Amino acid sequence: MTNARFPLDALGIARGFARGEFTARDMVEDTFSRIEAGDRHVNAFTALTVQRAFNDADRLDAMRAKGEPLPPLAAVPFAAKNLFDIAGVTTIAGSRILADNAPATADATLVRRMRDAGAIVVGALNMDEFAYGFTTENHHAGPCRNPHDLSRTAGGSSGGSAAAVAAGFVPLTLGTDTNGSVRVPSSLCGVFGVKPTYGRLSRHGTFPFVASIDHMGAFARNIDDLAAAYDALQWIDERDPACSARAIEPVSGIERKRALRVARLGGYFDDNASEEARAVSIEAARALAADDTVDFPDAAAARGAAFLISAAEGGQLHLPTLRSRYDEHDPLSRDRLIAGALAPAAWVLHAHRVRAIVRKRVLELFERYDILIAPATPVVAPHIGDEFMDVNGQRLAVRPNLGVLTQPVSCIGLPVVAVPMRTASGLPIAVQVITPPWREDLAFDAARRIEEAQLAWCPPPPSFASAESVQ
Amino acid sequence: MTNARFPLDALGIARGFARGEFTARDMVEDTFSRIEAGDRHVNAFTALTVQRAFNDADRLDAMRAKGEPLPPLAAVPFAAKNLFDIAGVTTIAGSRILADNAPATADATLVRRMRDAGAIVVGALNMDEFAYGFTTENHHAGPCRNPHDLSRTAGGSSGGSAAAVAAGFVPLTLGTDTNGSVRVPSSLCGVFGVKPTYGRLSRHGTFPFVASIDHMGAFARNIDDLAAAYDALQWIDERDPACSARAIEPVSGIERKRALRVARLGGYFDDNASEEARAVSIEAARALAADDTVDFPDAAAARGAAFLISAAEGGQLHLPTLRSRYDEHDPLSRDRLIAGALAPAAWVLHAHRVRAIVRKRVLELFERYDILIAPATPVVAPHIGDEFMDVNGQRLAVRPNLGVLTQPVSCIGLPVVAVPMRTASGLPIAVQVITPPWREDLAFDAARRIEEAQLAWCPPPPSFASAESVQ
Repeated sequence: MTNARFPLDALGIARGFARGEFTARDMVEDTFSRIEAGDRHVNAFTALTVQRAFNDADRLDAMRAKGEPLPPLAAVPFAAKNLFDIAGVTTIAGSRILADNAPATADATLVRRMRDAGAIVVGALNMDEFAYGFTTENHHAGPCRNPHDLSRTAGGSSGGSAAAVAAGFVPLTLGTDTNGSVRVPSSLCGVFGVKPTYGRLSRHGTFPFVASIDHMGAFARNIDDLAAAYDALQWIDERDPACSARAIEPVSGIERKRALRVARLGGYFDDNASEEARAVSIEAARALAADDTVDFPDAAAARGAAFLISAAEGGQLHLPTLRSRYDEHDPLSRDRLIAGALAPAAWVLHAHRVRAIVRKRVLELFERYDILIAPATPVVAPHIGDEFMDVNGQRLAVRPNLGVLTQPVSCIGLPVVAVPMRTASGLPIAVQVITPPWREDLAFDAARRIEEAQLAWCPPPPSFASAESVQ
Repeated sequence: MTNARFPLDALGIARGFARGEFTARDMVEDTFSRIEAGDRHVNAFTALTVQRAFNDADRLDAMRAKGEPLPPLAAVPFAAKNLFDIAGVTTIAGSRILADNAPATADATLVRRMRDAGAIVVGALNMDEFAYGFTTENHHAGPCRNPHDLSRTAGGSSGGSAAAVAAGFVPLTLGTDTNGSVRVPSSLCGVFGVKPTYGRLSRHGTFPFVASIDHMGAFARNIDDLAAAYDALQWIDERDPACSARAIEPVSGIERKRALRVARLGGYFDDNASEEARAVSIEAARALAADDTVDFPDAAAARGAAFLISAAEGGQLHLPTLRSRYDEHDPLSRDRLIAGALAPAAWVLHAHRVRAIVRKRVLELFERYDILIAPATPVVAPHIGDEFMDVNGQRLAVRPNLGVLTQPVSCIGLPVVAVPMRTASGLPIAVQVITPPWREDLAFDAARRIEEAQLAWCPPPPSFASAESVQ
């Protein structure tokens, strides 16, 4: 069903539209027809914004007809995880609890930023309930499936966002990442993802999970698209009290190419990675001429802190409905939320102290390195419903441990670009390109070098015409 | 014992020293002789830094002899609450637990800033244990007494800091304020105090109490001295992760005198103030031509949030020694710390949400006003040991309720200058001059107007020559 008339990548679409190769209306029509054909298999979307998309398309077509200057992402379809407010759509955050709420009356800041850049929102995307999970096995909407093997998970919690890009439905999507929710699905679906510095991108108009760790992010099929999306999203927004970026620092269209000091993370990151995950990390590090393998200080402690803070903040947030509407909460997360709501403050405060110590120690590590490299997931995509996975001979529960390699990094708010690579099994795993706070420019530079070395691998979208529905 | 040779105020001392009216060594000698005569009554000091003070004095005298330019607070004696690191002195934070620690090897940032401005540290000051109290009834060091009535409390937790200025021992002191610990003793001792915006002054090198609410502050005998101290203290210091000031904005020597929009806080602030406390607030508001009386939104909720956050953060901080050295903790605070350490995280997170909501609502109030006026304490200084006080016919426990009017303000991090005024009883109460975040300039401007209207009242230091020791 992939239509060769239209480029798969965002910048290709924007260029094709600007050159008059197709109308925005045609682009949107084609997008919805691909979603219609494919998404009964993938289950990435939970809502489509058909009328709005055509209105936006007509507006862009009129602009082009009048010869007006076109914004950088003109006519590029995109979609957002269903915890982003999209005017006219109820923000459900993957839950039944919010399903009867009135539709949002305004767009979230980032949805608005994408629209201002010319992109056209076409729908809302599946996720783990309240973003608390790594597999998008949503009990209400059904699981999101991995486009490259429909029996496997797309990862989570932004599973719909990664799958929609991997399936070729849209070239750009928005997601969020608290403990790995951009990087895990990026890894399992084989798409690029960015989770910037904590405080960089506005969370205004999104449904929170863990205010002290929640990050906004985006997915794309290549590094230039991802950079263009990230630059469109950057905005100093006082309506998000955590939005502490002090400057907009573009990452697209810039050739930096200075010598990067790169190290590969060993220790914890090797111990908790399968052989094929370690292999992509070694390969990426080699492409960046990394000599050293170093330890991320207190990685396990940072992960524990992130777990505890997440359960406690999430539990407190949802305590009223855990009390009154327990049965409507997703069984995969509700008991963890209750446990978190009962945790003593002293434990959580201790976790914050651990976090501060780890952050300080990792910042010291960045005095010697610009870039740290690690796999994003310990394994390739597990099968939907699998309870356990094997990692280096350890039998680990799948759902909490898909984030074992992402949690220590987000816990201390570091920026990461996830670059998908090919494993021996023929399925992707992403590497995390990790940099010091506010140095997304270095992460994009390094990711582009991995791409230029022909090591990045965003698999072509499958053809759903011949696929059997598994639903 | 007050020696007429030396001015009582900081800027007068700096001027006199610069003009050669006395040496810094004479100033320091006189200071120690006044402390020696008076402090056996007041009990403000817990340590004296005699050798260091004379060394600093000699250095300043040499500078002057050589005609070098003199810093703004040259030869001005000062002292710091004993939770500030002073090189060579053990930082005890009012506790027996820390008493056997090694002496500090470096000054706290603010002590260092004062020294860089030419001020001479002469000692460390009494406080409530771990800053958790409003009366400085310290069980280890003994209570700090109010210089104007030795049977009464100096307030707390920076009681020693306020009493040392009120007694005329030193013209400037450093203190800290989490829930009112600058403003309460300022009010009860009749001295000026400043608690700037949360994040303005560096806490590096101080012993913490409640990291998310702790503020640094200072005391003085008049507004120009306080402004000079505050300007000396301002510094962007990355070693305090909460130090978020982005600019140094001097408040001394500036005549602003634009029209100020002033309102008096009624409702909660009237209900919890005695008639004489209300009277000073009305008088100050009148001097500033305030027309309106307004409510501080959710003041009681903000106070509750501050209580809970303080107990929980303090409890978590001290949990190891509450377990192992319970008997050595001050009986006035240890059980509250234990209770706080057991509070569920959900309660504390809820308190932080309340805080964010109150802050938002109060910032809206500041769209209409530049200045809010309220008393700093509900009553004049209670007698040491008193358990209860009468406020508007309510019988209230003294120790937790001396901060009833300060807690809602510090909970949301607003800057305050406390201006002492005379009540009908002949004892002082301060008014809080409250402004929007980062607008200390407005607070100093309004405080100066109250001073110019002859309403501010810093009582003259008592003569301790004839006073009987009460210890």
